[in-house]
Amino acid sequence: MDHSFPTRLQLEMAYERIKRFVKPTPLLTNDRLNAFFGAEIWLKCEQFQPIGAFKLRGASNFALQMTDEERAKGLVTHSSGNHAQAVAYVAHHLGCKAYIVMPENSNKVKIENARRWGAEIILCEPTVESRHATADEVVERTGGRLVPPYDHEWIIQGQASCAMEIIREKNDLDYLMAPLGGGGLLSGTALAAKYFGSGMKTIGSEPAQASDGYTGFKQGKRQKKVQANTIADGLRTTVGEANFPIIKELVDEIWLADEEEIVKWMYRIWSWTKLIIEPSCAVPFAAMESRKEELKGKKIAVIITGGNVDFNQLPEPPSF
Amino acid sequence: MDHSFPTRLQLEMAYERIKRFVKPTPLLTNDRLNAFFGAEIWLKCEQFQPIGAFKLRGASNFALQMTDEERAKGLVTHSSGNHAQAVAYVAHHLGCKAYIVMPENSNKVKIENARRWGAEIILCEPTVESRHATADEVVERTGGRLVPPYDHEWIIQGQASCAMEIIREKNDLDYLMAPLGGGGLLSGTALAAKYFGSGMKTIGSEPAQASDGYTGFKQGKRQKKVQANTIADGLRTTVGEANFPIIKELVDEIWLADEEEIVKWMYRIWSWTKLIIEPSCAVPFAAMESRKEELKGKKIAVIITGGNVDFNQLPEPPSF
Repeated sequence: MDHSFPTRLQLEMAYERIKRFVKPTPLLTNDRLNAFFGAEIWLKCEQFQPIGAFKLRGASNFALQMTDEERAKGLVTHSSGNHAQAVAYVAHHLGCKAYIVMPENSNKVKIENARRWGAEIILCEPTVESRHATADEVVERTGGRLVPPYDHEWIIQGQASCAMEIIREKNDLDYLMAPLGGGGLLSGTALAAKYFGSGMKTIGSEPAQASDGYTGFKQGKRQKKVQANTIADGLRTTVGEANFPIIKELVDEIWLADEEEIVKWMYRIWSWTKLIIEPSCAVPFAAMESRKEELKGKKIAVIITGGNVDFNQLPEPPSF
Repeated sequence: MDHSFPTRLQLEMAYERIKRFVKPTPLLTNDRLNAFFGAEIWLKCEQFQPIGAFKLRGASNFALQMTDEERAKGLVTHSSGNHAQAVAYVAHHLGCKAYIVMPENSNKVKIENARRWGAEIILCEPTVESRHATADEVVERTGGRLVPPYDHEWIIQGQASCAMEIIREKNDLDYLMAPLGGGGLLSGTALAAKYFGSGMKTIGSEPAQASDGYTGFKQGKRQKKVQANTIADGLRTTVGEANFPIIKELVDEIWLADEEEIVKWMYRIWSWTKLIIEPSCAVPFAAMESRKEELKGKKIAVIITGGNVDFNQLPEPPSF
């Protein structure tokens, strides 16, 4: 394994470090899902984290490794989604300031959720350039430190704790499934499986309409741009620089999911399990359905990354 | 207490009897809900039952007390909702036939769910008269036995097991909250609280637009008709004959909930807890909000009766 990758010890230390913010989430199974796949499926329910998503793991591991001086000046980030809430939550509980740059067309619910933890929201134009430029300005003005959403070893170490919890509870899995956006979760998951798992495969899953990760993985070269046109709003980003080499070396396969199937599986999981999952979490299931035959009899854990759904913008439910 | 009521021993026997069908469901708490009410709220998650609702408790207790000869001829019921699924599920697992009379305008998902367990569906005209007449015909034709949805002591004994599970896990509650439709659950809950609880109050909750139970409770006289105009589709029935005297004697209060508040609380619970609840389960929360002051500091368990939602017919999400 590449010597620059986060180490086993770093993962173990992050696991202990973030316990003050991250509660262990349940690993649930569901009869109907098992019957459908003819397999044993386990759902790692990260939607039950206090901010409704796994992002708390990486953000808290990052904030807890900053120096006191840095924390005193504040945490800065740009995000329209779950990472913003994670940073706001951690800052609130550490008694420091959070500055969150959000596109001005962001969903009101998400802005409200970040504000709920006392974060200062700075609106910017809805472009990647404006987000970065505005965040840089805020760092300049406040002296705060930027907490990146996925492209940093501290984030990866923190996200790895999710798979570590799964493996501590259940170490006879055949597959460990995680969705792929920026790659923070997937790279951490692959590291955890490698260090602590007993031979399970790590499988990434990505919307076919935001498949930079899949393409990069196949070609062995990170794709720096993505034409994302998917309802899975957590997975529209390109894979990060720190994340790609880990994924390339340690992830076994990346499976794609069609848009229609993603919507269908979101409603299926809602209906069958009575758990709210956000569209991004439906991606692994949609990808799994297209490989149903090879999954028969297997033991599979799927990381349910979050449940922050905007009920004002639901897609039409398909028949299923 | 009235000597005709189900006894402590009967409840204990039902509790053991139905274990083959009913899995103990989790009692979950939620930080945001607790903060909102300034109270300690516990959610008894009956939506995790194999049919997505508590109705399995009463239906299985009924079926298991029928004679072998009766079971060989089959289980009959009329229902467009969760009770139909419960009877179909129990019959399937007992290896006997289920005949379910459903209004021809029933939701396709619900028909499909009952059919999934191999039940024979008999469609009828969408009137109460036609439902009863058709069910009587089916009983006549098949020799099967009618499994009533709430108005029978065996059903009440079975539904009581839900509160018994809560009390075994947590016996320092101030309030035990259940919604009120036909009264199967509420009468069973009140009996369980009386026999096994340490002084907790049993509170019913009902949509203001289907308030026959509230009116009957206040006047001390069962109302035989109800003008139900509520989204809480599980609570549109009148309180049953066997249920009313128990509710009248043992329930402490019945609280009403406005329609708008019911819709708001359904989405709030979805959003805050990431759990799917059906509109009927939002009724206790809506009723609780109007009494927020008196609930401060209290320990309250709320029975989440089910999560079978028709996602094709969702109401517009309000702001909350």
